[in-house]
Amino acid sequence: MVDVESVSGSEGPLADAIDAALREYPHLSVVRDGNAVVARTELDRSHRVVLAGHIDTVPVAGNLPSKVEGGVLYGCGTSDMKSGVAIQLRLAAEVTAPAVDVTYVFYDCEEVESERNGLLRLSKNNPASLIADFAILLEPTGGVVEGGCQGTLRAEVKVEGERAHSARAWMGRNAVHAAAGVLNVLNDYRGREPEVDGLRYREGLNAGGIRGGVAGNVIPDECVVTVNYRFAPDRTPEQAADHMRDVFAGWHVALTDVAGGARPGLGSEAAASFVAAMGGTPRAKLGWTDVARFDSLGVPAVNYGPGDPAVAHSRREHVPLAAIADCESRMRAWLAG
Amino acid sequence: MVDVESVSGSEGPLADAIDAALREYPHLSVVRDGNAVVARTELDRSHRVVLAGHIDTVPVAGNLPSKVEGGVLYGCGTSDMKSGVAIQLRLAAEVTAPAVDVTYVFYDCEEVESERNGLLRLSKNNPASLIADFAILLEPTGGVVEGGCQGTLRAEVKVEGERAHSARAWMGRNAVHAAAGVLNVLNDYRGREPEVDGLRYREGLNAGGIRGGVAGNVIPDECVVTVNYRFAPDRTPEQAADHMRDVFAGWHVALTDVAGGARPGLGSEAAASFVAAMGGTPRAKLGWTDVARFDSLGVPAVNYGPGDPAVAHSRREHVPLAAIADCESRMRAWLAG
Repeated sequence: MVDVESVSGSEGPLADAIDAALREYPHLSVVRDGNAVVARTELDRSHRVVLAGHIDTVPVAGNLPSKVEGGVLYGCGTSDMKSGVAIQLRLAAEVTAPAVDVTYVFYDCEEVESERNGLLRLSKNNPASLIADFAILLEPTGGVVEGGCQGTLRAEVKVEGERAHSARAWMGRNAVHAAAGVLNVLNDYRGREPEVDGLRYREGLNAGGIRGGVAGNVIPDECVVTVNYRFAPDRTPEQAADHMRDVFAGWHVALTDVAGGARPGLGSEAAASFVAAMGGTPRAKLGWTDVARFDSLGVPAVNYGPGDPAVAHSRREHVPLAAIADCESRMRAWLAG
Repeated sequence: MVDVESVSGSEGPLADAIDAALREYPHLSVVRDGNAVVARTELDRSHRVVLAGHIDTVPVAGNLPSKVEGGVLYGCGTSDMKSGVAIQLRLAAEVTAPAVDVTYVFYDCEEVESERNGLLRLSKNNPASLIADFAILLEPTGGVVEGGCQGTLRAEVKVEGERAHSARAWMGRNAVHAAAGVLNVLNDYRGREPEVDGLRYREGLNAGGIRGGVAGNVIPDECVVTVNYRFAPDRTPEQAADHMRDVFAGWHVALTDVAGGARPGLGSEAAASFVAAMGGTPRAKLGWTDVARFDSLGVPAVNYGPGDPAVAHSRREHVPLAAIADCESRMRAWLAG
């Protein structure tokens, strides 16, 4: 599955393969929506749970094809989150009579702007397909239940200057040089580490990119730094936006994308039962996940998956095969009831 | 002519118009080479001079169409150097019996990498067409003869980091943040102002652009700053490159483009006669011009044109109409002998 490239926007071949594989099982009803696939058991159980995972990855970074070395699987998407998707697929195929009805959701475009998110699209095209008593996202958590998630905000901070011929730079103002001010703010920034409902979060503020330049002979009159603010769930998107404007006061700040976080959802009965079955001590989820989207739909949700979040999106992304097997067997036992 | 857009690489329509206009005059022999046009008188005079100008401009910056206000022509390329090209065209058309043979050279791609330069291409395809006793480039000089020119070197300074998921930035190293080091060097840099053969030059070091970023969720592992070093003609290209490596020691520096300067060429007899006819006190040329290319072909050359170099490549680029007329009448008188 890792070797079927599925960078955001190019999930078609992998979605086709999942769709075709699951349609072979008579205990599942399968629906396709773009590059998302939803497979459901219809056993009239008193409760229903969602097992959800995104099938897209960040851009490949010289880390395909995959390889196995010493029981560890290396490659783009191994941690985030094709190992979780693999567990979904095996449970969907093999657990034909679970104690609760199960909805398996495979969706596209989680790694890009939230308006392209496949789960958001599903929630508009087919909201009934996501209704459940509890949802589990198999995002990388290192086999520990992670509650809530941080919000994420993207903004463009624009530095302005004045064009001039580069042989007479002193006639203009170089916007790229002036962008040092923005980068120095980023280098000096210290993120909050608040405790929310008993879990410790850790904020961060980072440049995701920078661009500036008109032509080789021209002093550039504009430089744009794209910044990403990861904020704890005690801040609303509005408060996060205000904070960005404070931090970059003096520059023009344009919001491009914001997704609120979710406070830890571990108080619900369903979440507590799942935590007990998986073992370990829950912790805060730092990365934004669609936990927040389920939360806003009124469905309690947690993150739980075999990948190591610390290596997600890195060239050295990997997952131990034993971790996949361990998560799978715990979830299989829990679904059996 | 200003309203016929001719950003580097798109000079076709303007070259066609110049070509068609000059072919109507029986005292000129016209040759086309790509988007360059060469028109020559063939009067068997004892001396030949070149009047040369580039017909391309930097990218339009909201400053087209042109407009005339208070006797001043505003618009992209008015100073650099369509006012000079206009003088070439009128002299070519109207001075049918000059005291010296004249070669009028109109060429493309002066504002971009030197390997695309139309005068360089002409010097390979048809070197005989450039041979002369003296050359004048009608680059913007504010109606003052400018001697020599500074060299220009472009390099890419690369800052490296390590990718990570942007929710856990501390697992990586943000190359865009680290680029603050390069920008701080640029902000702190003080250029030399050496005197060479009696003229004062002024060096400069500037970012022409910056780029970095992988995807919205990824801590970028590379940021590239393109820098442009304008160096006085007492330094060779090799010395300029060494200086760049010294200034940016600790980063990877890749040269992308270098063109040497030219020491002031005012010692030659032809240059002295031209200076006397134009009047005024010669000064140093700060911008790189094809003076250097003629210099390396063994043809003494100076810069002299009506545009103001201080507004070249800026949104507010302009030229007084009276300055064009003054330069034209001086050159017309000089050509008449």
